[in-house]
Amino acid sequence: MSEIAGRMAPMVGAQYLSRYDGGEGILISGADGVAPANVLVIGAGNAGFNAAKIAHGMGANVTVLNRSTPKLKKLLEVIPDVKTAIYSEQKFREELVDADIVISTVLIHGGATTPKLISREMLKTMKNGTVLVDVTIDQGGISEASRPTTHTDATFVEEGVLHYCVANMPGAYPKTATQALCNATFPYVSKLANEGTVDALKTSPSLALGVNVYKGEVTNEAVAEVLGLAFKELEL
Amino acid sequence: MSEIAGRMAPMVGAQYLSRYDGGEGILISGADGVAPANVLVIGAGNAGFNAAKIAHGMGANVTVLNRSTPKLKKLLEVIPDVKTAIYSEQKFREELVDADIVISTVLIHGGATTPKLISREMLKTMKNGTVLVDVTIDQGGISEASRPTTHTDATFVEEGVLHYCVANMPGAYPKTATQALCNATFPYVSKLANEGTVDALKTSPSLALGVNVYKGEVTNEAVAEVLGLAFKELEL
Amino acid sequence: MSEIAGRMAPMVGAQYLSRYDGGEGILISGADGVAPANVLVIGAGNAGFNAAKIAHGMGANVTVLNRSTPKLKKLLEVIPDVKTAIYSEQKFREELVDADIVISTVLIHGGATTPKLISREMLKTMKNGTVLVDVTIDQGGISEASRPTTHTDATFVEEGVLHYCVANMPGAYPKTATQALCNATFPYVSKLANEGTVDALKTSPSLALGVNVYKGEVTNEAVAEVLGLAFKELEL
Amino acid sequence: MSEIAGRMAPMVGAQYLSRYDGGEGILISGADGVAPANVLVIGAGNAGFNAAKIAHGMGANVTVLNRSTPKLKKLLEVIPDVKTAIYSEQKFREELVDADIVISTVLIHGGATTPKLISREMLKTMKNGTVLVDVTIDQGGISEASRPTTHTDATFVEEGVLHYCVANMPGAYPKTATQALCNATFPYVSKLANEGTVDALKTSPSLALGVNVYKGEVTNEAVAEVLGLAFKELEL
Amino acid sequence: MSEIAGRMAPMVGAQYLSRYDGGEGILISGADGVAPANVLVIGAGNAGFNAAKIAHGMGANVTVLNRSTPKLKKLLEVIPDVKTAIYSEQKFREELVDADIVISTVLIHGGATTPKLISREMLKTMKNGTVLVDVTIDQGGISEASRPTTHTDATFVEEGVLHYCVANMPGAYPKTATQALCNATFPYVSKLANEGTVDALKTSPSLALGVNVYKGEVTNEAVAEVLGLAFKELEL
Amino acid sequence: MSEIAGRMAPMVGAQYLSRYDGGEGILISGADGVAPANVLVIGAGNAGFNAAKIAHGMGANVTVLNRSTPKLKKLLEVIPDVKTAIYSEQKFREELVDADIVISTVLIHGGATTPKLISREMLKTMKNGTVLVDVTIDQGGISEASRPTTHTDATFVEEGVLHYCVANMPGAYPKTATQALCNATFPYVSKLANEGTVDALKTSPSLALGVNVYKGEVTNEAVAEVLGLAFKELEL
Repeated sequence: MSEIAGRMAPMVGAQYLSRYDGGEGILISGADGVAPANVLVIGAGNAGFNAAKIAHGMGANVTVLNRSTPKLKKLLEVIPDVKTAIYSEQKFREELVDADIVISTVLIHGGATTPKLISREMLKTMKNGTVLVDVTIDQGGISEASRPTTHTDATFVEEGVLHYCVANMPGAYPKTATQALCNATFPYVSKLANEGTVDALKTSPSLALGVNVYKGEVTNEAVAEVLGLAFKELEL
Repeated sequence: MSEIAGRMAPMVGAQYLSRYDGGEGILISGADGVAPANVLVIGAGNAGFNAAKIAHGMGANVTVLNRSTPKLKKLLEVIPDVKTAIYSEQKFREELVDADIVISTVLIHGGATTPKLISREMLKTMKNGTVLVDVTIDQGGISEASRPTTHTDATFVEEGVLHYCVANMPGAYPKTATQALCNATFPYVSKLANEGTVDALKTSPSLALGVNVYKGEVTNEAVAEVLGLAFKELEL
Repeated sequence: MSEIAGRMAPMVGAQYLSRYDGGEGILISGADGVAPANVLVIGAGNAGFNAAKIAHGMGANVTVLNRSTPKLKKLLEVIPDVKTAIYSEQKFREELVDADIVISTVLIHGGATTPKLISREMLKTMKNGTVLVDVTIDQGGISEASRPTTHTDATFVEEGVLHYCVANMPGAYPKTATQALCNATFPYVSKLANEGTVDALKTSPSLALGVNVYKGEVTNEAVAEVLGLAFKELEL
Repeated sequence: MSEIAGRMAPMVGAQYLSRYDGGEGILISGADGVAPANVLVIGAGNAGFNAAKIAHGMGANVTVLNRSTPKLKKLLEVIPDVKTAIYSEQKFREELVDADIVISTVLIHGGATTPKLISREMLKTMKNGTVLVDVTIDQGGISEASRPTTHTDATFVEEGVLHYCVANMPGAYPKTATQALCNATFPYVSKLANEGTVDALKTSPSLALGVNVYKGEVTNEAVAEVLGLAFKELEL
Repeated sequence: MSEIAGRMAPMVGAQYLSRYDGGEGILISGADGVAPANVLVIGAGNAGFNAAKIAHGMGANVTVLNRSTPKLKKLLEVIPDVKTAIYSEQKFREELVDADIVISTVLIHGGATTPKLISREMLKTMKNGTVLVDVTIDQGGISEASRPTTHTDATFVEEGVLHYCVANMPGAYPKTATQALCNATFPYVSKLANEGTVDALKTSPSLALGVNVYKGEVTNEAVAEVLGLAFKELEL
Repeated sequence: MSEIAGRMAPMVGAQYLSRYDGGEGILISGADGVAPANVLVIGAGNAGFNAAKIAHGMGANVTVLNRSTPKLKKLLEVIPDVKTAIYSEQKFREELVDADIVISTVLIHGGATTPKLISREMLKTMKNGTVLVDVTIDQGGISEASRPTTHTDATFVEEGVLHYCVANMPGAYPKTATQALCNATFPYVSKLANEGTVDALKTSPSLALGVNVYKGEVTNEAVAEVLGLAFKELEL
């Protein structure tokens, strides 16, 4: 789903730059002799890569910030004409001031909430009508002002910055999202149907990871902890 | 302005494919292993070229129909990975059935209204939730069902097809549009300021074409005709 | 060799589309304003990747079907302008009907025969004069009608479909094939010459895998089984 | 038709490099770590441009020679990764020695025969099994040894060089060729049908050029001369 | 020659950014995760186009300013990933501050001196160690501080900006420059040799423009004026 | 640093091709109708890849030689328009004769000196004024005649070949080099500051590898050997 959300991010960013949506009134691609929008992508994982690719395809001037070099290197092999830099607070502050669209794909693995890398004070340094697409809003979002929104009421303005914080972005394009999910899950379904549940779980560790309850006992540690129940290692 | 409208067309097409806007629910770029949207562009002039370029950059599967070969040839030199074909009613009907986004840039020079190339009967052959972006709605639009809309109420559905018929598309991105207009008009302003009105008009035939009234007489034939006034050739 | 066969596949497909060879009479690249041929590639491994790359370079409209997403993703990073989809029988049937050239690179590791994914009934749904290049004919081929052919009598027609089933495709271009083979084998030759047979085998497990008989005993399990002889683990 | 012949030229060149057709046995695209074929294109007009484009897309190492710079400049804007040089006999001789495929698109406007730029002595300096695709064989061809051939017996060997001299190359792909011809001729057909013969001829000078006989008199000077008849200027 | 000077400009700009030459110490291409140099090109004619193309190929972040849109449009068709903007003093001042290399290709046709678009005050706003490559120094150069230099002492520093003002840039690469000149002049030499001087001049107006003295009289008006001699129209 | 040196290599190669530096006088990019320089890159690792990429971007005709196929394959995925071949002495000798710039990135891991692949006899077969950029001069360099030079006296001529053997190439662009180094080292600095020396070393094996002396004892085997001191395994 991060691939789909990443591809959607520059599209919704470009849309909300429209004056009628409260944005700056800048066309993402610019025009011949008129500069395109500056799109700042935070993160170079799956979502960040896809956001950068589509933003570049739309004609934007794209900068990608990431904490480590290898992902930037990989990204440049596929999309050589974006700018990249290692993330630092100073660099981030400099880029925020010039950005017309900011796309955050910052994700902390292991469930913790996203760090609030954009404070209210930083929002104030940004241009009026800039659009922030906070892709990982499910984990809290990157801006101090971020709060989840819905597809039918997708944005709000704080400190002059349009926050787009839709919690389930791919829900807007269910046909594409469903096919992508089926592509990922069908091999498991097929395995379960052909081999039966227990045999399938025995030979597929990644499938076994998905078992939460087995023979009346909770076999997922996190679930057990949250519900205050006893946890039991899965034994097939 | 046709450049800006052309670049906007695949953006709004992609936006209104969203289920929340009544569209098919297909992401224009598709996903890895999921096909992208089929974008059908009618016309390969300035607007059509720009529509095809941005649609291709967004990852769509683009087909451009045009009446003559030279413009298609030129377009393929710059965007080699779109499909092109000479327009014929039969070809058009075939492509309409598969299209997810249809972008019409059909323009008749000399003020006549756009031919209604898409009849109601043809609309019915299209998929439910297809988006038609009728760029040249100012001249009447390509669909039998087209009627002008506004940025705040941009679409309506006829025969299952979303019609996007905003009369002044570039108005959504006024900063970009204004700069583009200034780029085009500033040389004239500069000439008028430096040389004075009469001398500037004498040495610039294209500027002189813009004079509607001079010394109390109407010097633009079309204006005179519409207003029922006498027309007088411009003499400086 | 799969790289070379893959690159040859769209070339021979394009050649046999010629009316003089019984094909549809469609030029793979099309012409300005005339659609190119639809090339359907099954499989996104080394052969499939190379087939898609050359077909795209020849101007074809390329679709690649594969069972899993990661190879499609990798392929799209290098050749962004082909269409990809996850293989399913339904999708395959739909694409077959429109294809002008079908290139099968389906390979089952471990010696089993290729699944007969194209039945006679499916051949009948294809256009007359379509070319099927069955790259993995050595393992039996993808079509129910496939049988090995030679470079001097390369094709036959079944159900209107030209089957190109040459068993050793790279044999047509022996200079290139030989150099490619030398590139792959020379490191082993050099090792054997420098270190002597036994020492070379001791330090190179991949070389040791190639020993079929050692000191009068069969050291390759599969060979032993086929010949009905005793198998002895290789001990150097 | 020169577009189609140009696109076919590297395809047939690559095909006849096969050992089974008497060629060098080199795969046009090479392989990873094995050099591709050297393709030498003479002329940078419509046929030369298309030959270079497809040869490059097939992975060849392409050099284009032309008498003047502007066409080379234009070609490099669209296909930046081919090598170009101004034609001189010395340069041509140097390149011939290294070429694996030579594609001649040399055309003298005004009906004269193609200059015999490749003498028998020069053929002898070329590698055995090189393929010469003599696209403009209708005007006599570029090689001293060239003579027209047919699709069913397309090549002959002189001085070790395979000559491919098929007089009507596009005839192999009639569907594509017919559509391309229709694209070019349909506007005239439509004009004749809508306006009647005489009016159509009056308003279209390019159509009028095609009239050979009118009211019993020969109106085409060249035809009159060849047939020994009186010529009369067309008067409608 | 403007093509060669244009291609050299980013090369010498990159070279003199070296600390050992007094430059900023920034590598034009940057590194993975380190921003490339900002290259500002003034003018989008032959020299400007070639400067932008090579600078982009070297990995720089390129911006091209030009007075009119059509040349920018053409440039973007061939090098889509540079930024372009219409020249205005304000835009120029903004870009100068960020530039690491400034390449001026400003040329006034008709012999007048280049306008001094960069004043000393503007030089002071630029970063220390920025390199200015003043390609059209022959006409005076763009900077108030520009004065011609030579290949053996190519630069000087004024207001912290390295001025590279070599009067005959292509002289550094005489083999390439000579071939390019021969390509342009050989058709005239050939014409003179084949037709004799007078006939050649009669049929080639562009050649006739080059005659300064004929039968003892000065036939070039500018030369006559400069030398204080009588001018006589060329009569052959 | 190999990335930066690799990117610099074609730049300095192009610079020293200038007649004023003793080079051949060939512009690396050539001109329209004039062939570009032949750049031969030895090695396809990080330095070789970057050298090939920038050389290609500068318009050169690039050939990369490497001992094994996988790196060439990877390189071709990102820069499809360079020529590649497996290194052999014969191939190397053939390419040397035609090269205008030779870039060696040959590196033997484990401290041994670079093999002297270019003998004096081979230097004599090269063109006068060819530039050899010997990137790995720190390990001895590829040419029998190579000896370290400095940025202020970077080249010397042996057997007609300009040797560029600057020992610390990235030192010319310290701003870029410093940022690249910081990107690589900052995670370690941060770890040391947050966790303290001992804990940081315990949890980061790659950091621990950098400890040469601990509690008065030499913990790096190579250092101990070179200094004739006792070596003690690091125990934290």
